[in-house]
Amino acid sequence: MTDEFDLIRRHFAGLTPAGEDVLRGPGDDCAFLRPPPDRDLAVSIDTLVEDIHFPATTAPGDIGWKALACGLSDLAAAGARPGWCLLSLTCPAADEAWLAAFADGFGALARREGISLAGGDMSRGGLSITVQVAGYVERGRGLTRTGAQPGDGVFLSGWPGRAAAGLARSLASTGQPDDPLIKALDRPQPRTRLGLELAGAGVSACIDVSDGLAADLGHILTASEVGAEVEATALPIAPELAAAGSRAQVREWLLGGGDDYELCFTGPYDLDIEGLAEAGGIAVTRIGRITAGGGLQLVEAEGGRSTLADTVGYRHFSS
Amino acid sequence: MTDEFDLIRRHFAGLTPAGEDVLRGPGDDCAFLRPPPDRDLAVSIDTLVEDIHFPATTAPGDIGWKALACGLSDLAAAGARPGWCLLSLTCPAADEAWLAAFADGFGALARREGISLAGGDMSRGGLSITVQVAGYVERGRGLTRTGAQPGDGVFLSGWPGRAAAGLARSLASTGQPDDPLIKALDRPQPRTRLGLELAGAGVSACIDVSDGLAADLGHILTASEVGAEVEATALPIAPELAAAGSRAQVREWLLGGGDDYELCFTGPYDLDIEGLAEAGGIAVTRIGRITAGGGLQLVEAEGGRSTLADTVGYRHFSS
Repeated sequence: MTDEFDLIRRHFAGLTPAGEDVLRGPGDDCAFLRPPPDRDLAVSIDTLVEDIHFPATTAPGDIGWKALACGLSDLAAAGARPGWCLLSLTCPAADEAWLAAFADGFGALARREGISLAGGDMSRGGLSITVQVAGYVERGRGLTRTGAQPGDGVFLSGWPGRAAAGLARSLASTGQPDDPLIKALDRPQPRTRLGLELAGAGVSACIDVSDGLAADLGHILTASEVGAEVEATALPIAPELAAAGSRAQVREWLLGGGDDYELCFTGPYDLDIEGLAEAGGIAVTRIGRITAGGGLQLVEAEGGRSTLADTVGYRHFSS
Repeated sequence: MTDEFDLIRRHFAGLTPAGEDVLRGPGDDCAFLRPPPDRDLAVSIDTLVEDIHFPATTAPGDIGWKALACGLSDLAAAGARPGWCLLSLTCPAADEAWLAAFADGFGALARREGISLAGGDMSRGGLSITVQVAGYVERGRGLTRTGAQPGDGVFLSGWPGRAAAGLARSLASTGQPDDPLIKALDRPQPRTRLGLELAGAGVSACIDVSDGLAADLGHILTASEVGAEVEATALPIAPELAAAGSRAQVREWLLGGGDDYELCFTGPYDLDIEGLAEAGGIAVTRIGRITAGGGLQLVEAEGGRSTLADTVGYRHFSS
């Protein structure tokens, strides 16, 4: 790690919690950590690139928030308790006001979720933010995409699709600052508490909905070598989403939109979703069931069904 | 972590060692690790941006090598044994030939140094590579920049300045493929073995020379609140470097050039540098001594001295 991080360190001083696992934070070539000896480490890295992952008009505080939310959502999907993170920031200029606002958004989420910034790097270049997160799970209890079994229920937290609808509004400049759809886009809520509950609830597979529900559930199906039937009438549609577009448009946002950072998971069909929702602080809906094969089927109220290709979600390198 | 990593995962399959600390590698939202319970974790993150950290003409295999070397060098400076790494790759297109060559360079160094690629992310955008590395040190024994004491010797591995001279040749297109200066630039050698030796040798402070010797030694002096006298005649100058430019130019490369990834460290003045060199596989030279203050002084053979500002090295956001 290089000394350029001085700049951002200054803006981050005291902004994130001092984790007891962080022996020594920024200021050396490496940061030093002492993970709890009886836990496995869950780690993830994600890069957000301007104009790819967020519009160039996004406020710096929202960029800071989202860059961390993205990693925290991976930890939630693994059932991990947030530990520490590293930040590598590439930006065109050392704009102190921009950095202060970025740090403000990043720090607000870090404090809420209890994750320490242990170090980082700073470079000149087009705006892009890489955050590496690490969290802790009980030994051998981390959640993965593998393990969904035929007969399992398929579950979903919250009301996905709102971030995609918010993006459409944001790009069309028709949204208001307090628009819940734009808020869902700019300040996504990683489902940390729910993820921690899932790790002990007998859940068989889990993923965060960052590429869109159909694509991400598709990843579970591929990894677990199973299929799924999703009931269209069971899909949770937020009132503000229902009011934001045509029925077809709403469905596209809900099935294909990413960036909501909700969790999609599988487990016993009669899982106590009310208990999970209460402990996890977010609604949980059973939207379907795992089948032995047949890909991802969407079943309509009248019994008609369609197969959802797993390419509905956003893919960086699809042709 | 997102599914786009599939692409690079395909190119990396089997290319890096399967570390026993990696419980579960790429393919889920998080990778899972089980660090040795009696060790501290040393971690670092670094981003290389095209045209900032390497010329756009750099071969993809060299970019892959350098991106990992950068992190491994941080681990060496911490005295850490390499464990695992994460890779976030941002590139303009999914060029399979480019990816294969990149993976080849990255994998060659990973195998040599025994570090596993545990996961990653891939995005579309201007070429930039972020590598996060993690390694292990005995509890409380990680090397830092803090701890240099007046009277300590100042030591240096290898022959820095060659990468900077190689860059000059490379930009002027006057180098040959087997030019040792260009090789020093394109395939820097992280001093992993030496770093491991240093951790047990009573070294008081350590840094890798990535910003240039003067700047990086300056970081030790600042962090340790001491000064240093470096003897100009003691500086190790590789014959090929001496032959590459004027005396002033050579000194500028040696004191100001980065990217050699040599180690600069302090410790007992009579440190067994021959033993260290043998065990570490690289020459070690004592270049001066730590003083109580006075900044960083360069002492000439005839006794003249000059103060080196710590801004000689490359800084991303200096005005």
